[in-house]
Amino acid sequence: MFIHEVDDDIALKLLDENDGETLFQLTDNSRDYLREWLPWVDGTKTADDSKEFIRHILKMYTEQKGLTAGILFNGQLIGTAGFNTLDWSNNIGTIGYWMDQGFQGNGIMTRVVRALIDYAFQELKLNRIEIRAAFENRKSRAIPERLGFTQEGKVRQAEWLYDHYVDLVIYGMLACEWEQN
Amino acid sequence: MFIHEVDDDIALKLLDENDGETLFQLTDNSRDYLREWLPWVDGTKTADDSKEFIRHILKMYTEQKGLTAGILFNGQLIGTAGFNTLDWSNNIGTIGYWMDQGFQGNGIMTRVVRALIDYAFQELKLNRIEIRAAFENRKSRAIPERLGFTQEGKVRQAEWLYDHYVDLVIYGMLACEWEQN
Amino acid sequence: MFIHEVDDDIALKLLDENDGETLFQLTDNSRDYLREWLPWVDGTKTADDSKEFIRHILKMYTEQKGLTAGILFNGQLIGTAGFNTLDWSNNIGTIGYWMDQGFQGNGIMTRVVRALIDYAFQELKLNRIEIRAAFENRKSRAIPERLGFTQEGKVRQAEWLYDHYVDLVIYGMLACEWEQN
Amino acid sequence: MFIHEVDDDIALKLLDENDGETLFQLTDNSRDYLREWLPWVDGTKTADDSKEFIRHILKMYTEQKGLTAGILFNGQLIGTAGFNTLDWSNNIGTIGYWMDQGFQGNGIMTRVVRALIDYAFQELKLNRIEIRAAFENRKSRAIPERLGFTQEGKVRQAEWLYDHYVDLVIYGMLACEWEQN
Amino acid sequence: MFIHEVDDDIALKLLDENDGETLFQLTDNSRDYLREWLPWVDGTKTADDSKEFIRHILKMYTEQKGLTAGILFNGQLIGTAGFNTLDWSNNIGTIGYWMDQGFQGNGIMTRVVRALIDYAFQELKLNRIEIRAAFENRKSRAIPERLGFTQEGKVRQAEWLYDHYVDLVIYGMLACEWEQN
Amino acid sequence: MFIHEVDDDIALKLLDENDGETLFQLTDNSRDYLREWLPWVDGTKTADDSKEFIRHILKMYTEQKGLTAGILFNGQLIGTAGFNTLDWSNNIGTIGYWMDQGFQGNGIMTRVVRALIDYAFQELKLNRIEIRAAFENRKSRAIPERLGFTQEGKVRQAEWLYDHYVDLVIYGMLACEWEQN
Repeated sequence: MFIHEVDDDIALKLLDENDGETLFQLTDNSRDYLREWLPWVDGTKTADDSKEFIRHILKMYTEQKGLTAGILFNGQLIGTAGFNTLDWSNNIGTIGYWMDQGFQGNGIMTRVVRALIDYAFQELKLNRIEIRAAFENRKSRAIPERLGFTQEGKVRQAEWLYDHYVDLVIYGMLACEWEQN
Repeated sequence: MFIHEVDDDIALKLLDENDGETLFQLTDNSRDYLREWLPWVDGTKTADDSKEFIRHILKMYTEQKGLTAGILFNGQLIGTAGFNTLDWSNNIGTIGYWMDQGFQGNGIMTRVVRALIDYAFQELKLNRIEIRAAFENRKSRAIPERLGFTQEGKVRQAEWLYDHYVDLVIYGMLACEWEQN
Repeated sequence: MFIHEVDDDIALKLLDENDGETLFQLTDNSRDYLREWLPWVDGTKTADDSKEFIRHILKMYTEQKGLTAGILFNGQLIGTAGFNTLDWSNNIGTIGYWMDQGFQGNGIMTRVVRALIDYAFQELKLNRIEIRAAFENRKSRAIPERLGFTQEGKVRQAEWLYDHYVDLVIYGMLACEWEQN
Repeated sequence: MFIHEVDDDIALKLLDENDGETLFQLTDNSRDYLREWLPWVDGTKTADDSKEFIRHILKMYTEQKGLTAGILFNGQLIGTAGFNTLDWSNNIGTIGYWMDQGFQGNGIMTRVVRALIDYAFQELKLNRIEIRAAFENRKSRAIPERLGFTQEGKVRQAEWLYDHYVDLVIYGMLACEWEQN
Repeated sequence: MFIHEVDDDIALKLLDENDGETLFQLTDNSRDYLREWLPWVDGTKTADDSKEFIRHILKMYTEQKGLTAGILFNGQLIGTAGFNTLDWSNNIGTIGYWMDQGFQGNGIMTRVVRALIDYAFQELKLNRIEIRAAFENRKSRAIPERLGFTQEGKVRQAEWLYDHYVDLVIYGMLACEWEQN
Repeated sequence: MFIHEVDDDIALKLLDENDGETLFQLTDNSRDYLREWLPWVDGTKTADDSKEFIRHILKMYTEQKGLTAGILFNGQLIGTAGFNTLDWSNNIGTIGYWMDQGFQGNGIMTRVVRALIDYAFQELKLNRIEIRAAFENRKSRAIPERLGFTQEGKVRQAEWLYDHYVDLVIYGMLACEWEQN
């Protein structure tokens, strides 16, 4: 029911259980593409798994521990984005995102993440935003790079993907830097 | 962060803890006006009480047991409205609402409630919507009457308001009736 | 173990898990008869479901949110009756009841409900008692009518029974009225 | 509301929160007498403590872990008795009891405990009932001795009473023995 | 990871889930021997049951309600021993133990239990330690007798072992007695 | 009660509530020194706070989400060390540690951390161990550097210390690297 408008085409929607079936179809239609970089694809076997995930993110939102939303492009659900973790001791948010392959290449995700950052620094009063992406995942890394994040390090073998570890690049953006843009 | 647009002026916002202070001020500024018909005014003593209320409605939303939102008029919080209860055994939603005195008389609440009913019948697939209003509360009763609800009964002494009981009028709207409008 | 004596023949028993098998048999023996007006019959498939129901009503009793008891006629369990809800904000109790077909017509349920009302007004200090019965359910409606309740309204399509909605009649009795009998 | 009749004068009542005030008064009126053998007297400072105790025993009853009731003598609350523990792995119940000093010497408690034992062996199908009493507490020990329990041992320093330990005598009664009476 | 050294050969280990498989094998290899006196053997069907038991004892340890450890003999897990219950109202601990048949007869368990008693009286400041053993279980009874416990009673039919009840002998040791050794 | 021996002088102890007073004294005696780099010092006001912390780490240990132990030097508690987080999805452990000022400079912490790493790779089968230290905290950074960790990045303003943010250096060690030492 509730959305956060990004621009004329794009909105973030707080998913509810009624979105479970649609979210599952989105995942199921692109399994091969998604599982290259996302660890939860094989565990998403039925629409009930997607509903369980939605209940989880609603609970995280209620407890202010996370904030994950569906990405709507002209009203159609095409992925999710948001803060996987919110660390209120240190005022840090960690952004994660994924999108259906067919919508890549139009700058949609960059606009979504920019909106999340605006919200985080202006409304949530966070001080630092972090994005982690696999070293080899060029598409994912392009987002923070385009948005002016600083590459702060490369943590080795930091994520297990079904049968192998991947290295993650850490990108950071501080509130004071974002304001200067 | 998340809103549901009603029209150009009006929106429903899923409140989060950051709205607690504003919600409290809204209540605190109109205590005398609000307590004539609302039983929770005296128990709302500080902004922490408003934050606790917001946590409660977020929890209800997460569990699909209720759906209460803030009413924004040109971006300003002026009241709340939504489903106090959602009865999925019988597909019934019970709507409740209140608004700051200064914004009365512009049809705002009628538009808000109409949007809630549209959402409930179209998206939530409810079958019946109920509104209860005190017999003497003309302003509150005007909403369902304007929207074509059927007056189904008057339950006597059904609500305790600080020092006296009031009778409540029950209004009902069925999905099949709403569609015919 | 614990009972509330109504008169020489009738008693109300706080059911415990040991009553689960008997309660299930009572239900199972009259499925067709009971399911005409009771929504939970099809969901009661084994004695474990009846035990689960008993645990639920004991929990409600412990938390003072409800009070449902077994009806004993000359020591034999023939139905249940009690307060499905206890609303301590407004001092309202909602009475529900059902009984095996073979014991109908002897005024047993009227005596049971009269005892519940006496207890509610005298001991629990409630102010209002409500009974809801399906419009077409003459037997159930006869109870509040015989006891002098006021018919306060008819809420349409307020209960879902397996494959259709039924309208409910609301009856109300106030503490001040009962004392005058 | 619910009672278990012992005989014409005596009944066991499942206490509810409304009994909290009466139970507290009973305790408060006999502090010196009761604290000689009961470890919980000093911790019972207000009626809220008694209500908390009642909630606790209702919860134990709901979970079938214990069964403690109020003793009514001609309708007046004069003490409590019941099963402090119910061990369903070994089918053992442990009986505890106390009573106002003024009602001592009439065989009331013996009749109460006999009724509890009847219930435990016949309805709960327990196999063994245990009573523990302080070695020096002649009044308490008289109950199991009068009812034919076997003295099975004396466990030393097994209970702490405010400022000293006391030895406890263990009495046991088996189902097969009780039937032979 | 964490152990409590008893002497050069023997240690007590706080079991963690990684020990589940080893603990299950130990049980599974001696089913016939163990089930003569232990009631939980038949319920231990897979390594998951042993892991569940380990989670249970870790939870008890965390809440200071019990303290059960694995017995290591030269680094090999050969049984468990510890406090099944810790009663902080009366400062009593109840010791329980079992060991693989092949390691019997070397005084291992006596040394383990002596270490537990030392710890309980010196560190936990308990006042009384209790051991219960089946009347016919000579091996188990030999431990408290060798350590100077007082035999305080015999409680009849106090434990159910699959198809029959056994009598238990109660042994007690007081802090003041232990110090005099 | 339970310890993990590091060498003749040093051991790791699983703290229990009885250690709360000692742990608090250790903190209280070095407030100024500790609060330069540790964010929890000001929140540790009484021994109850230290006991609460111990209950927390025991709960984390029970749920296998963390493993924090007390450092004993010749039997005296001088600090804590362990895994603040255990990430079983990616097999990563994050090590944290602190020690009383008076024991610095003897290589104690290096030996402790080496023992933790040995345990993590050999017993817990982790794949990666991470240590984060403030950029300016030379003493803390010396530990991973001495043990051959790779410096993988510097995350800016990643920790809030009372009134300012500090940058953290990330060090990583992989299982395959540790084995080659």
